Amino acid sequence: MASPEIRERVTQIALRRGIFFPAAELYSPIAGVYDLGPVGKAVKERIIKLWRSIFIERNGFLELETSFILSEPVLKASGHLDHFTDPITTCRFCGSKFRADHLLEDQGFNTAGKTVDEINSFLKQSNIKCPVCGKNGFTDISFFNLMFKTNIGPAEGNPGYLRPETAQGIYLAFPRLFRVYGKLPLALGQVGKSFRNEISPRQGFLRLREFTQMELEYFFDPANPEPPKGFEKLKDKKIPILTHEIQLKARELEGKTKESKIELKPEFLSLQEIVDRGMANKIMAYFLGLTYELYERCGIADKLWFRHLFNDEIPHYSGGNFDPEVETSYGRIELAGIAYRTDYDLKSHSQLSGKDLSITLPDGRKIIPHVVEPSLGVERLLWAILEHSYRPKDEIHDWEWFDLPPELSPYDVAVFPLMKKDGLAEKAQEITSYLRQQGLTVLYDESGSIGKRYARADEIGMKWAVTIDYDTLKDNTVTLRDRNTTKQIRIRIDEIKEKVKR
Amino acid sequence: MASPEIRERVTQIALRRGIFFPAAELYSPIAGVYDLGPVGKAVKERIIKLWRSIFIERNGFLELETSFILSEPVLKASGHLDHFTDPITTCRFCGSKFRADHLLEDQGFNTAGKTVDEINSFLKQSNIKCPVCGKNGFTDISFFNLMFKTNIGPAEGNPGYLRPETAQGIYLAFPRLFRVYGKLPLALGQVGKSFRNEISPRQGFLRLREFTQMELEYFFDPANPEPPKGFEKLKDKKIPILTHEIQLKARELEGKTKESKIELKPEFLSLQEIVDRGMANKIMAYFLGLTYELYERCGIADKLWFRHLFNDEIPHYSGGNFDPEVETSYGRIELAGIAYRTDYDLKSHSQLSGKDLSITLPDGRKIIPHVVEPSLGVERLLWAILEHSYRPKDEIHDWEWFDLPPELSPYDVAVFPLMKKDGLAEKAQEITSYLRQQGLTVLYDESGSIGKRYARADEIGMKWAVTIDYDTLKDNTVTLRDRNTTKQIRIRIDEIKEKVKR
Repeated sequence: MASPEIRERVTQIALRRGIFFPAAELYSPIAGVYDLGPVGKAVKERIIKLWRSIFIERNGFLELETSFILSEPVLKASGHLDHFTDPITTCRFCGSKFRADHLLEDQGFNTAGKTVDEINSFLKQSNIKCPVCGKNGFTDISFFNLMFKTNIGPAEGNPGYLRPETAQGIYLAFPRLFRVYGKLPLALGQVGKSFRNEISPRQGFLRLREFTQMELEYFFDPANPEPPKGFEKLKDKKIPILTHEIQLKARELEGKTKESKIELKPEFLSLQEIVDRGMANKIMAYFLGLTYELYERCGIADKLWFRHLFNDEIPHYSGGNFDPEVETSYGRIELAGIAYRTDYDLKSHSQLSGKDLSITLPDGRKIIPHVVEPSLGVERLLWAILEHSYRPKDEIHDWEWFDLPPELSPYDVAVFPLMKKDGLAEKAQEITSYLRQQGLTVLYDESGSIGKRYARADEIGMKWAVTIDYDTLKDNTVTLRDRNTTKQIRIRIDEIKEKVKR
Repeated sequence: MASPEIRERVTQIALRRGIFFPAAELYSPIAGVYDLGPVGKAVKERIIKLWRSIFIERNGFLELETSFILSEPVLKASGHLDHFTDPITTCRFCGSKFRADHLLEDQGFNTAGKTVDEINSFLKQSNIKCPVCGKNGFTDISFFNLMFKTNIGPAEGNPGYLRPETAQGIYLAFPRLFRVYGKLPLALGQVGKSFRNEISPRQGFLRLREFTQMELEYFFDPANPEPPKGFEKLKDKKIPILTHEIQLKARELEGKTKESKIELKPEFLSLQEIVDRGMANKIMAYFLGLTYELYERCGIADKLWFRHLFNDEIPHYSGGNFDPEVETSYGRIELAGIAYRTDYDLKSHSQLSGKDLSITLPDGRKIIPHVVEPSLGVERLLWAILEHSYRPKDEIHDWEWFDLPPELSPYDVAVFPLMKKDGLAEKAQEITSYLRQQGLTVLYDESGSIGKRYARADEIGMKWAVTIDYDTLKDNTVTLRDRNTTKQIRIRIDEIKEKVKR
């Protein structure tokens, strides 16, 4: 199925089933702000649970929760106050404001790597029409800060900002938590919303003003960059890397050919090979491995690579970055960033707060720890999962469905009475309560024909459905239906949990 | 132990162990904004899990996640733009701003029920000194809106606000979700942060500018106010109610006696009795019952009552309110509100958006549903739990500890190797991995003497600790220590899960 069509189908199902939808849609909704309905929320929680199990619990790492509102000095130190911006231009006629690079790109100008002067002269020379009023004439660009600003308390002049990332809260909490936990490496994670006041968000669910991050900061002694214990077990795992060589070769070819796109193929390298080739240290490699494992379990690994960024694409302080990028109907999108941030953030906060954030190690050395940060987005991942698991009608499904991995199923199992009458509904409700007491999440549905209920369950990606029929009343067995095959088997009620539970 | 002392002890332990602490404390922290460290976060997640199991999953209700930023019309309709305010006064000399009622109360003026004119004349006549500059002279009060305001996008004049409650997002999502789910009653819940730009927050962790709510909106047909199915099972449950009669009697007595405080005793009424006495309908009564069950399982029920609010304390549209109030070192504090909101919110949104939000029932009637809302706070509950479970040193604990209910323990179990040497640490790590694979959360600690580790675990409210010793290497048994008795029993490794898991 062609890309735009998949996008359209996923969006339609999402809206119809309330998976996600524009927030406050009764009024004119705010672009880039979405709500999650019950199904979207449930799948999101499953994604977070998976992250927590892979990134936090398995390693014995720690999770915290830091504030949404940050004061100005924090964001001065982090660089967001000065650099978290997009270029903006204003129509001289109607006053509409646009993100300058998008406006120019829509007209075929590539602004990547261009200076401010070059962009300004593009804007002047070109005959670009204002998308709102149709006239030509734009101001020189300025830089619009993408943080939502507010004021704290009643006295003016106490600016606060909604956090642009959850990571800064972790850095700020590090000094106290190092005193509590007392040793390196110390790994602190956090899941939560971050905010980005986009100039004019497009791309629906992909470019959000409110979005959820799953971030982890791994603080370690740079003289002893020991990876988590799990590295040894994982080091032979191969993951797809878009190496510098592959990217350079493609650039070269693009110059020589008329084809607009060279098809890129990543190289599968083990974590140990990534280390041996000097592309990353073991800590970085380990988190690349965990990230890939998460995406494998989300069912999107076959459309994914980790792009090794070039030095001119990364901040001056960075010790290396890899971006997982996945194929979608919007093209390749960045799902996350795995970054070696060195001691940049702690050093900045130390300088601006005037507090010494160095720590003393058992061997007497005073250091500022280095940090490796895997920072993953949730909503984009959810979108990629929906696109990749979308299935059109086929021979055995007379309806569209999502082939979600069972562990991302919005509920563990659906329970349907064949009919409402003859005590079947009561029996089904009794089984529902029983399964809930066993710790399963259950979708109970008694309305409409059984075929329609299977269709509705398939359409939200439910893997398992249990049907209560007249035999159930006799022998306490039910049918268990597998979404993918639509085949049913007969099992006892007390076998349901082990069959459906991962 | 006297109240202020408990408060001090809980706060000290919280700071020392990083349970909670002021956000961004490297800089001058923002009053009323706290971070949760790993232990606080873990206990908070347990509280939310408990709420989810009692309020959502058991009943087959739905959970969603709506946006943090709301546009102005939403909050005009909800009443927050006009009425979510506190009275503020400014010192004419130094310009400091104060919450007028607090300023006056600190000087012994009771402002409850007073008019604006009366408060203004209090401020003028009295000789109140500015707490900042010490001079006397205040402006007339004005009303400060407690929402954090921001601007959406680059064009000025697009105000947005951080949500003051999660409930409005649920009302806004209701029309779409009713189309999806198709029938009443429909119950939609949400857990998430809300924001309140306090004028000058005091009371530490109790009066927060960022706080977490667990809210549920139960939409139903007012002509057929059927309670959830669970009511029948719960209807004989007795809960402590501070009835109107008890409150009136106390007021009367207070007039007659010189004692400053009458000791109030709630009446224990079953949910059915609450209904039979006409104090609430079955839906309200059911949610009072669930709320009480949650607090019972949090270990604070013995210090709690549900105060039945009088008509002059509740909004004009309300069909009745009960506030659970718990005894703490700050006095009685409100933990939640269980409110019959009638059709107020949907009607307001209908009027302001110009969209007809009535729904058509199977019998052809067109109605706007009524709503009952149990709205519970998380951080205040966490504080109350910590205060109530705090235990000073005793005969068997040479350290302070928290008697947390096991299901609120920050981790399921602690694992300690008796010594690091002789393979004990390796064995303990192996057992840790094994338990994590079984789905338990584990606190692993190998540093310091075993006694110190027990003390540290008790101090954060861990119920169970497993110790790996030389016998473990021989026969795969461990000791399991119970925090409360400090007694240990010897069990097999494969018995740990069933012993510690609720």
